[in-house]
Amino acid sequence: MIKVAFQGERGAFSEIAAKKYFNKAIEVLPSYSFLEVFTKVKRGTADFGIIPIENTLYGSVFETYDLLLKYSLSITGELNLQINHHLMAIKKYSLNEIKKVYSHPQALGQCSNFLRELKNANIFPAYDTAGSAIISREEKLEPTAAIASAEAAKVYNLKIIRRNIQNNRQNYTRFLIISKGKSIRKTNNPKSSICFELKSIPGALFKALSVFALREIDLVKIESRPIPQKPFQYVFYADLVGSLENAKINLALKNLGEIAINIKKFGTYESGKTFIS
Amino acid sequence: MIKVAFQGERGAFSEIAAKKYFNKAIEVLPSYSFLEVFTKVKRGTADFGIIPIENTLYGSVFETYDLLLKYSLSITGELNLQINHHLMAIKKYSLNEIKKVYSHPQALGQCSNFLRELKNANIFPAYDTAGSAIISREEKLEPTAAIASAEAAKVYNLKIIRRNIQNNRQNYTRFLIISKGKSIRKTNNPKSSICFELKSIPGALFKALSVFALREIDLVKIESRPIPQKPFQYVFYADLVGSLENAKINLALKNLGEIAINIKKFGTYESGKTFIS
Repeated sequence: MIKVAFQGERGAFSEIAAKKYFNKAIEVLPSYSFLEVFTKVKRGTADFGIIPIENTLYGSVFETYDLLLKYSLSITGELNLQINHHLMAIKKYSLNEIKKVYSHPQALGQCSNFLRELKNANIFPAYDTAGSAIISREEKLEPTAAIASAEAAKVYNLKIIRRNIQNNRQNYTRFLIISKGKSIRKTNNPKSSICFELKSIPGALFKALSVFALREIDLVKIESRPIPQKPFQYVFYADLVGSLENAKINLALKNLGEIAINIKKFGTYESGKTFIS
Repeated sequence: MIKVAFQGERGAFSEIAAKKYFNKAIEVLPSYSFLEVFTKVKRGTADFGIIPIENTLYGSVFETYDLLLKYSLSITGELNLQINHHLMAIKKYSLNEIKKVYSHPQALGQCSNFLRELKNANIFPAYDTAGSAIISREEKLEPTAAIASAEAAKVYNLKIIRRNIQNNRQNYTRFLIISKGKSIRKTNNPKSSICFELKSIPGALFKALSVFALREIDLVKIESRPIPQKPFQYVFYADLVGSLENAKINLALKNLGEIAINIKKFGTYESGKTFIS
């Protein structure tokens, strides 16, 4: 069975993303940090890692961007997961019975409208959503609920009291699949990720983008990160529509070499499908 | 005396930045959050706010970028501050005497090499660097040090035991000065900040950058942030060399209107000087 490492406890949204993506029985390896996910894949303890790279409400996940550059792993896939939050507890309490609610601060913020309906509950932050499910399971003194994923309810055997309690349904996280293996494979919807540093020439970013635009290569995302040893200089990450085996993209990257240095190819993978959590 | 709001306790790096920037007696208004800084300026409780926008090790400060867009305030200045960390305590303890060290986790990380020299100390995270200075002052049971700014040592009357203990000296934070007033003023080194959303047309980012590149307007920084109601669409923030009153820049922005929507001008200000904290 293939082994997939993710950051978080059992029932985390990353685990749901892994199960949706692989769509078969997998062995999931919960990990304490993103760094641990990369290390497990690098060492071969895991066949794949799954990492969040951006969220449509909060933006890019800087830590995973930086780790992509630091570790020489390939990106072999991606998916978008709609993030749905549910209220859960060991019993189907009525809303007025609930005395405590735990969840990650971001999830609490995302469910703020619903939380105002809970007249008798105190709200507490927790380290992560799946962790809050564990807390609600273990707290025996008072009716205690958690805001977490449907998967967390299943893993920790909790009853879902109310589904989809987030203020905004337009909440998606994009995940990447990373592995040690080579990424390029046949697909009808190839997407590729690269990063590069610009040379110190005028209009360098414009010129870098022009090597793609002039060849009608679509650039779907661009992100910049600082270079620690070069103050106010940046590494640019770009996602392109097309395969790194495509002749036009190869010419574009050759052209990019005139404007940029340290060009790195993370790989080609199938453009991400969207799943509901 | 002009009033300047900043996020953090007295002695925070933002306070140092404010004092260096205004270079005269100012009244500083410590604030709990960035949101509070923006609110104070908006309501007129403060004449100016000072906010970190990017750090050369950690990257952009998303929260302040998002607040810039949300509040209609002008950017009236900027500066870069070199971040220097010092070890301090109520007495000039020897390194071996120290039993506890407090600081913000980022500062602890930045001083990890030096911390290995403290053989007898336990390391504890604190809410911020200036807050750790307060803790070291109040802890009477054991020799307790803090890692914080020179200003914090002054404010809380602590002795500096060791200066400049960070691993990497290339640590700069760029701060912006915000106010309700109009920003444009005469300067020899004007810089301007804008933001915009791209229309859904192919190669939109390339085309947006081309309106500047074709007129030889230098773009020194570009940052993107997600638009919560439009999944996988972004607001782009750009810093340009030149004034918003400059004819070429005006033509470029008119041109940008064909490619982008919701163009917002944050103002023109003098390009930032670099100060040592």
